[in-house]
Order: sequence, then C-alpha cells, then structure tokens
Amino acid sequence: MRTGVWLVGARGSVATTSIVGGLALRAGLAGPTGCVTELPELRGPALPSFADLVFGGHDLATTPLCKRAEALADSGVIPGRLVAALPDELAAVEQELRPAPVGATQADRAAAVVSDLTAFRERHALDRVVVVNVSATEPAPAPHPGHADPEALRAALTGPDEVLPSSSLYAYAALLAGCPYVDFTPSTGLRLPALTALAEQARLPYAGHDGKTGETLVKSVLAPMFAMRNLAVRSWSGVNLLGGGDGATLADPAANAAKVRSKQRVLGETLGYLPQGGSRIEYVEDLGDFKTAWDLITFAGFLGTGMRMEFTWHGCDSALAAPLVLDLARLTAAAHAAGHVGPLSELGFFFKDPLGTPTHSLAEQWARLVDFTRELHAGRDGADDHAG
Amino acid sequence: MRTGVWLVGARGSVATTSIVGGLALRAGLAGPTGCVTELPELRGPALPSFADLVFGGHDLATTPLCKRAEALADSGVIPGRLVAALPDELAAVEQELRPAPVGATQADRAAAVVSDLTAFRERHALDRVVVVNVSATEPAPAPHPGHADPEALRAALTGPDEVLPSSSLYAYAALLAGCPYVDFTPSTGLRLPALTALAEQARLPYAGHDGKTGETLVKSVLAPMFAMRNLAVRSWSGVNLLGGGDGATLADPAANAAKVRSKQRVLGETLGYLPQGGSRIEYVEDLGDFKTAWDLITFAGFLGTGMRMEFTWHGCDSALAAPLVLDLARLTAAAHAAGHVGPLSELGFFFKDPLGTPTHSLAEQWARLVDFTRELHAGRDGADDHAG
Amino acid sequence: MRTGVWLVGARGSVATTSIVGGLALRAGLAGPTGCVTELPELRGPALPSFADLVFGGHDLATTPLCKRAEALADSGVIPGRLVAALPDELAAVEQELRPAPVGATQADRAAAVVSDLTAFRERHALDRVVVVNVSATEPAPAPHPGHADPEALRAALTGPDEVLPSSSLYAYAALLAGCPYVDFTPSTGLRLPALTALAEQARLPYAGHDGKTGETLVKSVLAPMFAMRNLAVRSWSGVNLLGGGDGATLADPAANAAKVRSKQRVLGETLGYLPQGGSRIEYVEDLGDFKTAWDLITFAGFLGTGMRMEFTWHGCDSALAAPLVLDLARLTAAAHAAGHVGPLSELGFFFKDPLGTPTHSLAEQWARLVDFTRELHAGRDGADDHAG
Amino acid sequence: MRTGVWLVGARGSVATTSIVGGLALRAGLAGPTGCVTELPELRGPALPSFADLVFGGHDLATTPLCKRAEALADSGVIPGRLVAALPDELAAVEQELRPAPVGATQADRAAAVVSDLTAFRERHALDRVVVVNVSATEPAPAPHPGHADPEALRAALTGPDEVLPSSSLYAYAALLAGCPYVDFTPSTGLRLPALTALAEQARLPYAGHDGKTGETLVKSVLAPMFAMRNLAVRSWSGVNLLGGGDGATLADPAANAAKVRSKQRVLGETLGYLPQGGSRIEYVEDLGDFKTAWDLITFAGFLGTGMRMEFTWHGCDSALAAPLVLDLARLTAAAHAAGHVGPLSELGFFFKDPLGTPTHSLAEQWARLVDFTRELHAGRDGADDHAG
Repeated sequence: MRTGVWLVGARGSVATTSIVGGLALRAGLAGPTGCVTELPELRGPALPSFADLVFGGHDLATTPLCKRAEALADSGVIPGRLVAALPDELAAVEQELRPAPVGATQADRAAAVVSDLTAFRERHALDRVVVVNVSATEPAPAPHPGHADPEALRAALTGPDEVLPSSSLYAYAALLAGCPYVDFTPSTGLRLPALTALAEQARLPYAGHDGKTGETLVKSVLAPMFAMRNLAVRSWSGVNLLGGGDGATLADPAANAAKVRSKQRVLGETLGYLPQGGSRIEYVEDLGDFKTAWDLITFAGFLGTGMRMEFTWHGCDSALAAPLVLDLARLTAAAHAAGHVGPLSELGFFFKDPLGTPTHSLAEQWARLVDFTRELHAGRDGADDHAG
Repeated sequence: MRTGVWLVGARGSVATTSIVGGLALRAGLAGPTGCVTELPELRGPALPSFADLVFGGHDLATTPLCKRAEALADSGVIPGRLVAALPDELAAVEQELRPAPVGATQADRAAAVVSDLTAFRERHALDRVVVVNVSATEPAPAPHPGHADPEALRAALTGPDEVLPSSSLYAYAALLAGCPYVDFTPSTGLRLPALTALAEQARLPYAGHDGKTGETLVKSVLAPMFAMRNLAVRSWSGVNLLGGGDGATLADPAANAAKVRSKQRVLGETLGYLPQGGSRIEYVEDLGDFKTAWDLITFAGFLGTGMRMEFTWHGCDSALAAPLVLDLARLTAAAHAAGHVGPLSELGFFFKDPLGTPTHSLAEQWARLVDFTRELHAGRDGADDHAG
Repeated sequence: MRTGVWLVGARGSVATTSIVGGLALRAGLAGPTGCVTELPELRGPALPSFADLVFGGHDLATTPLCKRAEALADSGVIPGRLVAALPDELAAVEQELRPAPVGATQADRAAAVVSDLTAFRERHALDRVVVVNVSATEPAPAPHPGHADPEALRAALTGPDEVLPSSSLYAYAALLAGCPYVDFTPSTGLRLPALTALAEQARLPYAGHDGKTGETLVKSVLAPMFAMRNLAVRSWSGVNLLGGGDGATLADPAANAAKVRSKQRVLGETLGYLPQGGSRIEYVEDLGDFKTAWDLITFAGFLGTGMRMEFTWHGCDSALAAPLVLDLARLTAAAHAAGHVGPLSELGFFFKDPLGTPTHSLAEQWARLVDFTRELHAGRDGADDHAG
Repeated sequence: MRTGVWLVGARGSVATTSIVGGLALRAGLAGPTGCVTELPELRGPALPSFADLVFGGHDLATTPLCKRAEALADSGVIPGRLVAALPDELAAVEQELRPAPVGATQADRAAAVVSDLTAFRERHALDRVVVVNVSATEPAPAPHPGHADPEALRAALTGPDEVLPSSSLYAYAALLAGCPYVDFTPSTGLRLPALTALAEQARLPYAGHDGKTGETLVKSVLAPMFAMRNLAVRSWSGVNLLGGGDGATLADPAANAAKVRSKQRVLGETLGYLPQGGSRIEYVEDLGDFKTAWDLITFAGFLGTGMRMEFTWHGCDSALAAPLVLDLARLTAAAHAAGHVGPLSELGFFFKDPLGTPTHSLAEQWARLVDFTRELHAGRDGADDHAG
C-alpha cells in the first residue's frame, strides 16, 4: 500500500525530523522509538509499512532540506550520523518539495496545490496521499460568509478576499484532490463548516487537531489520576518556555491564545470543573528546539488538607511530534483504505484538542485507538483473504 | 449493613484520620473528598454507608485518641474544628480501642484478638467486621516451617517461637474470627501460604497490599504514558523524604528495602524493562506528616533524542490514605457480603503491590474496579428485590 | 529610645504580622527568627529595642486588627496561640489605627495625616516616629508638574488635582511631620524630585524600596554566583504565583509591570548583560498568603556547554516581610537619631530596587549593612559616654 | 612565565576537557567562559597566560587523548569542531602523558614520578610545574605510622607497605620534585602531617581540596542567604544523580562517604548548626558526564512559619571543573612565583572543603580571592619594574 505523506511546512523542524526518521527507519538505521504504531497492541497488516511511505510537501521557506537536517543535528534533535548516511534519500525528497502556491485568487492557489498533489500521487503510483499540516501556528481567522458551506466557499474563493487561512486552504485543496487530511497544529485547518461538509461529500476521513507532545500529554494522565482519586484540584498553573520557530510564532498573542485555550480544555473536561490558574507560553530563544514546561498543581485531600505537585517537562518537540506524524499518516491511510469518512475521533490519543470526542484521558483514548486499529487489521486480514 | 472497621494501629496517624473523617462524614461536617467510593462510577447500594461504619481497633500505644486527633490538627493534617466538634463520638470510639493482646504464646495472643473481634461484632450487632492493618511497616520476617500450611502454623503457634510477625498474627486472628482482612501496609500480613490457605478454608476475602498514596500513584499513570507513547525510559530515580512515625520506621534498612522494592515493581511491570536508577526513602523529621517525593525520569524519543521529566509530590500521607481506608472497608465488606473469597485482585487500584494482578496501570486498575463495583451493586439490587 | 512605627496599610497582612510579631517579641512569647537586626553582626545599643516600639497606622479598611490576626492564624501565617495570648496588646494598637484621611484637597488630607502622626508622637512621648508604607502596590502615577520641586508641589496640592498617588501623599505628610519614611512596596512613595528635595530640607532620612522577600532574594545570591564563576547566563525566566490581597492587586497589568521591572533589574545590574526571558506574576487565589516562584536559568560553561538550574521558592510573604519591617523601623530610627539625611543606601540589603546604590548582590549589601550598623553602634556608644 | 600543568588522571574527563580548552584558548578558538581568572577583578600580569601553559600528566588508562576528546564531543561536553581543529596540539600533549609509575616499593614509584616531572620541566624549559590531581576519588586510607612526619614517611615508603594512597604518593613526588600541588578531588592528597611538613620544608605552596562545581557551589551562596536573613533552616536534603566514571567510583560507599561529608560541611559551618537531612550520591549511567542534583530546604520564618525551597542543578561536571583547573594552575603558579608557602587558604573559593579557612560563603571566599590576586599582581608589577 504505497502511501504519500505530503507535509505542509515541509522544511520545518517537525517535518524534517519526520522525513529523516522515516528514511532512517526504511533504511534500518534507526528503531521506532516514539512510534506508537509499532507497539504490539497497534502493529498489524492494515498499516502501510515505513518502506511504503513517500514524502513530499510545500513550504514557504527554501532552505535545502539537508541544511535543515544538519541544523537539527547540530542542535541535538537528530543524530548527525543519520543525516550523513542519507544524502541520496534526502536529495530525492528535496525533489518532491514545492514552494508556496501562486495564483491571483485563493481558488487559483488551491488549484495549484491540487495539481501538485495529483502529480505527486501519479508520479509515484501512490495508492493515496495523506496531507499533514505541520506548519507554524496561525492566529484564528476572521469570520467570513464563505466558511458556511461548500457552495458559498467555492464562490468566495474566486474573489479577492483572503477567505481561508493558509491551513484551511491546504485542507480544501487536499479534499479537492481526494486526500485525507491531518491537522497536527492548533490552526483552523479543516474545522470550518464548509470544509467538514466537503469532506463528507468527498467521502474522506480527517484527523486533528494539535499534536499532544508535552505538557498536555502529561496533563492527560495526571488530571484523570486526580479525578479517579476524587481529589479536588484547586489550581493548575503552567508555563511553557520554548525556543525554535514555533516559539516565536506563539509569542504572537493571537496564536498564543489559541494554543493556551486548547491546553486548558483537558482540565475542564476531565475534572468536570475548571481549577484556578492558567497556562502560558513564552519564547526563550536559547531553548532552541527544546521546550521546558513547569506546572504547579494544588489540590485538597480528605477533610480539605492542602497538598501540591509540581512537574517540569524538558522535551524536544520535534522528536516527540515526528514519530506521531508518521503514525498519523499510517493510521489515516489505513482508515481511508477501510472506507472511513469524516472526523477520525478514534485518533484522539494524538491530539490536545481531539475532533469529535469528549474524552481527554490518555488511557481512554488509548483504549479507543487499540480497538480502532484492531478493527482495521481485522478488516485488512479479511481483505487479504479475499485477495488471496 | 452495619459494618465494623477494626484498625490495627488504631492510634496512628492514618487510623486517627480515618476515624475522625468517618465520624465527620457521618455527622455531615465534611465532604467525601478523596473517597473513591463516592464517585458516580462507584457509588451504589452494595456499599455500607458511612453511617453504617463502627470503628474499633488495637494499638500498642495508649495516647488517647482525642490527643492524637488534636496533634494531627496542630500539624495541619485535619481541621481543628472537626476535632472540637466530635468529642462524644471520639470518646465512644476510644471505648472500642484495645491494647496489644497478651498471652504466653502467639496462639494465646491470637485468641485474645479473636475474642476482642467477636465481642466487638456482638456488642454492636454488626453484620461483619473488616480488619484493616494500618500499623507501622515491619521488616520481612525470617522464614519458619509454620508458614507453610494451616496445620503447621497452628501447631507452631502454641510453641515458644515468634512464628508470625505482628501483621500476620492479626491476619490469622481475623480469619479465625471470620473477618475479611485488608493490608494497607507493605508488611507481610496475610501473604504466607498458611494464611492464604486458611482464608480459602474460611471462605473469606482479603485485599492488599501497601496503599498507593504518593509517588507510586504518580508512577502508575506516568509509566503507562511513556509506554503508550513508545518512549524509552532510560532512568527513573526517586527520593522520598518523610517525617512522622512511619518515616522513622522506614529509616530502618530492612523496612526500607521492602517498601522500595514495592515502589520499583510498577516500573518493571508496566514498561516491560527496568530503567536505571532506584527509589530511596529518607527520614526528615521536620516534614512531619507530610512527604516530599522527587523523581527524575530521563527518556529517549524518536531517533534517540534525550529528554527528561521531573516531578515533586508534596502530600500528606494520612490525608491521602484515610479515605482509601474507608473505601477499602466498604468495598471489602460488600465483597464479603456478595460471597467473594480469596484475594480481591479487583481492588488493585488502591495498592502499590496489588495481590493477584499483573497490572500497575492506574487506568486499567480503575476500569477493573468500576466493573467490580457495578457487579456488586447489580447483585445487591437483586438482593434488595428478594428482600422486598 | 521610644520609637513609633506608623504603618500605612496597617490592617494588611504584612502590617498585622509585624504588629503581632513585635508584640510577641516584647512579651517574650516568640523569638526573633527572620529579624536581621538580632544577628550578632548587627545587634547593638544604637537600635531601639522591641520593647521600645509603639505601633500605629492608617488603613482604608476597617476590619478589626484582631480579626485580621485571627484570619492570618487560620491560614497558617502566624500561630493562633500568639493571637490568643495578646488580646489587650492588640486592642491597644487598635486604638492607634486611623481611617484614611479626609479633606477636600490633597493638602487637606496631608494635613490630617500630619496631625495624626504628631498626636501619636506626643500621646506616647516618642522620640520619633518612622512611617513605613506596607499598603497595596499602586500603578505608576501620571506625570504632573507638581512633582518637580517642593514649591510646585505645595501649590498643586491645594488644587483639585490628584497630584500625588497615595503612597507619595503619605511620604509627603511624613516629611512635614518630621518623620523618617520607609517604602517597603514598589509604589512611588518618596521617589519624586519634589519629595526627595523636601526630605533634604527637612533633614530626614528615608529608605526603600520594594522589600526583597522571595524570588528576588534568591536571585540576588544566584546571579552573583554565576558572575563570580564567569558562567554565561543565557536565559532566566520566572513565574510568580501568588494569592492574597497583593496577588489580586498585582494582577492589574500596570502594577504588575512596575513589580516585574524591579524584579529583573537585579539581573542586568549584577551580570552586566540582560539574559533572555522575563519574570511574570500571576494571581492564584488558592495560594492564599503563600507565594510560589519558579525560575529556570540556562547557562553556558567552558567551551559553551549548555547547563540549567531550576528553583522553586514557596514562601509566605508576610512571614518574610514582617521581621524586615521591624528591622527597617529600628535601623531607620537609629539612622535618624545619628543625624543621617537622605536616601539610606546602606539599607539596600532589604530591597529589590534599592535607593542610591548600584549593587544588587546580597553579600555586598550585607557587608555595607554590617559596616553601617557598626558605625551607628560606635556613635551610640560615644553618645552614651557623653550622656554618662 | 612558562608553566607546566601536570595532571594526575590526565586521560579523565576533567583533564581532557582542561587540555582541549587550554589548547583552544591558546589558539583563539574559544573564549574563557567559566575561567574565573579572566574576570576583570582577577585578571593581571602575575598570572601565566594561557599560551604559557604546557600540559602533561599521568594516567593508569591508555586510551589515546584524542579518542577521549572525541568521546566527550559525542556526549555534548565539548564541541566536536574544537577537537577536529586541534589534532597536532592534542598529539603533542599525548607525547607528554605517562603511564602509572612502576617500582618495587612506593619509594621507587615516587622516584619515577619525580623523574617524569623533572624531565618534563627541563624538556620544555618551564619555570615551574604545577601538579593537579583530577583522578578518581579514593576511599580514605587506613592510618599508618608513616603519615606522622617526613622521616617516618621516608622510611616507611622503602618497605613493602602501601603506606600512601595514590593521590598522596603523587603529592609526595610533587614536593620532592619542587612542584606546587593542587588537589581538585576529595582524596587525601597532601592532607597528611608528613606531607604538609614536607611542603613547609620544601617551601612549596599547595591548594585544595575538592573542586566546588555543582550542588555545593549553590549551597555556598544559599546557606549564607538564609543565615544573613536570620531564617532558621530546619532541613536540607539533597540527592546527586551522576553518570560518568566518577559516578561509578562514588557508588562505592567508602568514597561516597568522603564526598558526602565534604558536601554537608558547608551547611554546618555557614549556619552555625546542622539542619536535619543529608546529601546522597547515586550512580545513573544514562546521565553520562552530566549530573543532576536536587535539594529540598525547609525553613522557618518569623514566628515559626514553615516555608520551603527546592532547586535542581543540571550541570556538566567536566565543563564546570576544567576552567577551574586552569585557574588553579595559573594562581598556584603565581603564588609559587611570589614565594607563598603552605596551604593557599586564599583559594578557598574553588573548593568544597577548603584548606586552612573557616568560611564556606562564596561571597567571602571571592573577596579573599580578589585581595589575594590584587597582591600578586601588585608584587608582579614591582617585579617587572625591577626586571626593567
């Protein structure tokens, strides 16, 4: 099952790490640490193998992919020996990267993306292409009448307005090209009525949004712990210090607000009430591709006794996100192959702000994911039987 | 369903907090924060109500219960207003506390305990009495031939040897008196072949062991998180600083070793491998009834990138343990009423070192506990129907 | 040397703790933990004894002092037994507390304060009264031509404008009444050209500003440590979570800005460069009178190796500030007695943003303080000789 | 002033980092971050320049120096580009490294070391050679009559006993060869009556011991902070997790004990009392050359209010120690040139367990160091004048 992985933001840290990692896995140079789909509970025949993945993508930037990879190696995100061992493979991917689409209207630019996606699929004889958004977080867009339904959207895009934010224009183009879409960022992406309706019409699945890679991952196990023990969380305050490109983007208050809202949701929905305190994102250039989050939780036990917990998470976002990007591409491809349509709420495990599912508990999300992949594999075994 | 709660170590911090809390709940002076059995998923007709609980117990110490309660109020473990509001209720419980049993042989002392338990049950017309061990942690006992089976044990106890450690002698007496037994400590308790066989013979359930109230509770959600994300935990090192009586006891290397082993088990069994590092317990008198645990976890993500997490847990053990003692008394009573016999592996949720179950994941333990109580309530509804 | 301590904000947490503590010290019910002036290096004959201190003050609020003290006892700031032991003493101080001054113009209100101060001094036959501002932090005031010099100020105050913020109006009144003035807050206080000129004319000393009680105290020893070791601090990011009245005040962005600026100054001035990162204040009501600060410092060692340090400070601001208020009252009184005029830069040890001194290193500030008190005591010994 | 730096343990991490760094500084490839002697307060003509330093040493191991340097680059301790840029310089130092001395008696082995030192000094026409012990920590030696005085020692060494531990045998040889000696480790080194007497006879200065590079460095500013504020430290508990060669050595209980004692001394001597709690060292291989220390300090403020502080230090010991090794070589050389004899207590700034000085406060140690170097430079200016 040859599968294209089309990365929006293909020269960014997450995408570059995904590509280097995918190539290294294919070449047997690295193991699948961090790849959820390689765990015994999820592994199976329905998923395309790492060798089946072909990478391509768009990016506004033009820095050569191998330079980006070397920079990531210098800053400790990926081992330099892997970059050094994969020059031809990286050069081959470089050939599949395209600049930002041009055109007079957003409709023109969407058409250019569709053309890139279609050509990519045909050039490599791919069964399907999964589009994954890993580009920088956008501010929330202004409302526009074109967001309401597919017809209104189609009409509006031919005019002069910037109807859709970039992430949504890519989602739109993906749907037109018949590609499943995954949003790994907190940007709008496919979450507009016009686009979800279009996905239904096109019989395409999609997944999102906002990859759960750090502080929120920890929250999604600690908050259920407090809930299961009937402990009253009085306050939960967090600060995220991060460098890297995304850090600078998130220093923008509008983008920050979107991300922070998505971060606090897990608490309200898991605990059933919103504790005091908030979560905050700050840019500290020196941290580079690493992120340090600190959270203080104050809680009450029996008879009101006050207690507290602190944690510090010092993670490399790209190294945490990249294997999940590969997982999501594999799972979404398998879901598409199995005929799933609409929001893949079974993939909530991967996201801070999961589509179409109320639970934020990692354990519950895991249980759903295990069930979902079991069904995919079972169906695939059937398919294989038929094929045989 | 009138239920006796017989506390071994009844004047200790955990027992005193359990008693004050149980009385306060009955009097409507406090809410059930920290009581798992009051969560919507577990609440139901099979459990004795707080008003149905009657407290009694043994202790080597003789400090009046109200003095112990006042001391706990002074150190911030329980609110002073509750102690002040319950003088008669505390005095009534004081009447039910007994000194350590005396007798020439362990058989004599067991008989004295049996007599205390039986008298307690009859005096209050109780449906049953659950014996809960919350006394100080013991060192592991020397092996003895009497541990092998009930006959050998019975014979040995009439001799001059200290055949059983204290926790096990109480377990033995509980079984003789027809009482279910819960071990909230890491001591040996019922975990000897002679005693488990005796429990089967007596058709009694038992639960244990070592209440999961702090660092290990956190481990039991964080370790599955790393496992579910296929992240490689390289080291997990912890230190527990604790004051209070139990702190001094655990400073004893032999007791420390038992506790530390129980703390690390969760990692090996959840991750499938044992990371580097260890867990350590140190006595710091100034911390009083509070405990500070600090853990450092180093882990590898995709392509080997090194990352780290730290947490500090600053909890009051008594305030965390006491509501669980009430929960365990209620659940074990209900299990006994429903005819359960042998180790209650469904109560693994409460323990660091759960009997008869391989999982240490809090989420899995929770799912089992929810199923178990649902069955208890369903059976009880039936019982009520019959009664009606 | 009978000395009045007139507290602006006399019913606040810091003032109440200072008063209870001062009375407890006088009554021999408590030791001088946290009182710097009781250290062997500083103790001596020039300072008024605790028994020489008489408390009074102003406050907008009218909650009785003993109620405030009981509330602080309930929240763990001061021992309840002290409050219970000092009812008459607290009632006597209550008699010396005055509401906010009234009057049509600021000149009128200043005159009312002068009258209160003078009457207090005379009523108790005090050698002098030190006015200490411990009221809530104000936003920075709008510039006004009246701030320029004493004449302009005097004229402006008779008009309808709110020329001076509250802290400065008290400072003005203190100077008119011949009282030394200490600003323990980051508010404007005496720091206006008109007021400093007036202090010179009145031959009065003053000290400030912004008591160094938590995160900044730690910074003032850690920043010199990095500097002395020639380690390059790359980033220093902090967050302060605080409840209590001051927390709510500081949630106001304008007040927050003043406080944060004062907090970062120590870094730039100690290191000689400003690292990346910032300091932030957030209000978390549940923390009550306690404050939790977390700081992350990233730094480079030899050949650029990146390293990091984190600290968490969990302190009770009132318990840290109150003994310093007593220290400052004693030291400023002694300085006044010795004829010091103008900013007491030798008291920089106590302040986040010390007047008239470039150093923020606690060790250097300590050395200056030790020298200063030694001189005061030496002068006083001389005075005693003369007196004899 | 050409100065030899003879490193005992020359292929260890600290020595290798010192050598690479010294060569890089000489070549202008790196700046002096972490080198205290390059701060404006200490810099001056009395110190040999980096270009004046010539490296040599002994080691039991035989791994080539460039291999050790590459391994340190791989683990992030030093930049790989520096190792790559200095192949000839490293090869030249390789020529100056010697294996462990051989000989039938300790006297023979000392003579072999003396011969190595003398030949090194002559081969490079050095003004002097400073011997610096950076080898692995030894357990405390058994007492021996030969430790009492130089005569007894000389006699004993010719016998079959292992009279001196390795660090002391090197110290003895250094003195015989007329070389000042610095002990950067907690080993015995020169601290035996026989050896200190011999240093006096030989008119040689020496410094030590146990470089202050991490947790104790932080303690040496925090403990004075608590003392200067008259805050009562109730407990101070620490844990040091470390990998690397020294980590494994220190896992040995005997060596651990020496190190831990040296770590706690700073508290008792700074505070005037010993708080509860202890310091502990644990080996965690995964941490490599980095060390994570966590400390919890509980303290009381005014009227006994309990508060707490935690810090985590994540440092690279080699990157912290190496520049201090260069500093100590330069300072000890200058002290020798200026005629200083005996323990250089003025260098206490560098050590956990400073010789001949009661203070552990970093600020006081710094003040002494500044005075000392000022005198050295002043004398040297005079010397230059005479020379001119």
